[in-house]
Amino acid sequence: MIDRIAILGTGLLGTSLGLALRVAGFGGSIVGWNRRPEGAHEALSMHAIDSIAPNALEAARSSEVVVLCVPIYSTLDHMEQLAAVLGPEQLVTDVGSTKAQITAAAGRLFNAPDRAAFLPGHPMAGKERGGAALGDANLFRGAAWLFTDDPSWQRSPQSEALASSWRDWVVAIGSKTIDLDAGRHDELLAWVSHLPQFTATALSSLLEDQVGNAPELKQVGGRALREMTRLGASPFSMWRDIAHTNTAAIEAALEALEQRIAHIRENLRTPELRDEFERANQFRRE
Amino acid sequence: MIDRIAILGTGLLGTSLGLALRVAGFGGSIVGWNRRPEGAHEALSMHAIDSIAPNALEAARSSEVVVLCVPIYSTLDHMEQLAAVLGPEQLVTDVGSTKAQITAAAGRLFNAPDRAAFLPGHPMAGKERGGAALGDANLFRGAAWLFTDDPSWQRSPQSEALASSWRDWVVAIGSKTIDLDAGRHDELLAWVSHLPQFTATALSSLLEDQVGNAPELKQVGGRALREMTRLGASPFSMWRDIAHTNTAAIEAALEALEQRIAHIRENLRTPELRDEFERANQFRRE
Repeated sequence: MIDRIAILGTGLLGTSLGLALRVAGFGGSIVGWNRRPEGAHEALSMHAIDSIAPNALEAARSSEVVVLCVPIYSTLDHMEQLAAVLGPEQLVTDVGSTKAQITAAAGRLFNAPDRAAFLPGHPMAGKERGGAALGDANLFRGAAWLFTDDPSWQRSPQSEALASSWRDWVVAIGSKTIDLDAGRHDELLAWVSHLPQFTATALSSLLEDQVGNAPELKQVGGRALREMTRLGASPFSMWRDIAHTNTAAIEAALEALEQRIAHIRENLRTPELRDEFERANQFRRE
Repeated sequence: MIDRIAILGTGLLGTSLGLALRVAGFGGSIVGWNRRPEGAHEALSMHAIDSIAPNALEAARSSEVVVLCVPIYSTLDHMEQLAAVLGPEQLVTDVGSTKAQITAAAGRLFNAPDRAAFLPGHPMAGKERGGAALGDANLFRGAAWLFTDDPSWQRSPQSEALASSWRDWVVAIGSKTIDLDAGRHDELLAWVSHLPQFTATALSSLLEDQVGNAPELKQVGGRALREMTRLGASPFSMWRDIAHTNTAAIEAALEALEQRIAHIRENLRTPELRDEFERANQFRRE
């Protein structure tokens, strides 16, 4: 029932989304917009979008579903602007990595019977480098796609139907949808996503200081080193917004890891080390 | 020129080594021994070895090259026993992950003109789980194989020729040999191998406490979480010996990481975070 989708931000996620929708059989039109025009042209050349809009508002106005595929603060900016011009027969959704601030804005600016709906979403997919050129129709296959809908929201029937239809498309492109509370989302993600990222950044940055001037020594580490530092290539531009919008939960997770590493350091020669390995083994079981 | 090799310890490394030698065209005999007889039978059934010796000494006595593929403390034990029975026409080598203690023992027990030679080796290859059944002829392909030979050692011409021939076989199975001082080896490995392992153990153990009781939440983390915790499955039995034989260097590396994580935690909202990401990006460049 969705005929026209606007993808605002044709980076890795936006471009992959357009490609995935096409592969899954979406037959309507997909209009794209990107802050840097080259990104939009790349997405167009890859057939992830059918046309390029001159600006974000124009792309959104003429679409039933608007997907914001931009960093978190840009998402919040677009939400302010879109809320003023969209109506109850339209749906906005997003792919932002933290959800508390976006979900609060969605309740304040959208999701009333006379307004557009906003469905806060978060696909657990990405690559360590961004950009349209890395767009991949299979990026979302097998990934979790989290939604932090608020059950108290009163949407128009049309926009509610669009939200339901969007969820169907998310399943059609191979993702598994999971619903959870926005606050719980951000706390959970601090552990299973933000903590691994900042750990990889700390490890990579430290190793750059220690062995960065001897590239041949990086080879010595092999697969283990490569895997543990792969996320070191992640762009600051994306993670700054995550650090700013989930600060307290990330601080708590990082501090807990510092303590756990110190505990291992202090027990390299005691039986406590076995307990830590067994607990870690347990995490990797099933 | 090597006709008979003994592999003592037919776990993942020993079994992979036998398979790799065969694939590379080694036409001599390979006798195996393993503390647990099932491991030797598994290696035999995979054709990684041709026969099973009743004990380690018997396998070693009748071979030109003896490869110790057991944990570090077992390697040190075997070295004491083998030094007493082997002669200057024989070579012992190993695959131990720390080299200072083994290299010191090699100088004390071997590497005199009237004794067997000992060539301390360390292939940078492995999997997060051990055992003969995971043996893989390609395990060493593209990996660094480190040697910590001491140039002051005076070996017999026969054993020196065997050491040179063993290096050729290491290259033949696809590894890149690198020579370095044993002390430098252990300090370097603390950064590029031991630090990543203990970091993964700390992260996995912490996450087991936080989300271990909700397996569906592990899926949420996706590829990033899987990669950053893969080494959490590593066996304590192997890492205990590494922790015991390289304690000071590992302590220093872990403490430096604790400080780096704390620095990131204290700067989640300052421009310092950008510097850390840029340094981490730099490590992943070239």
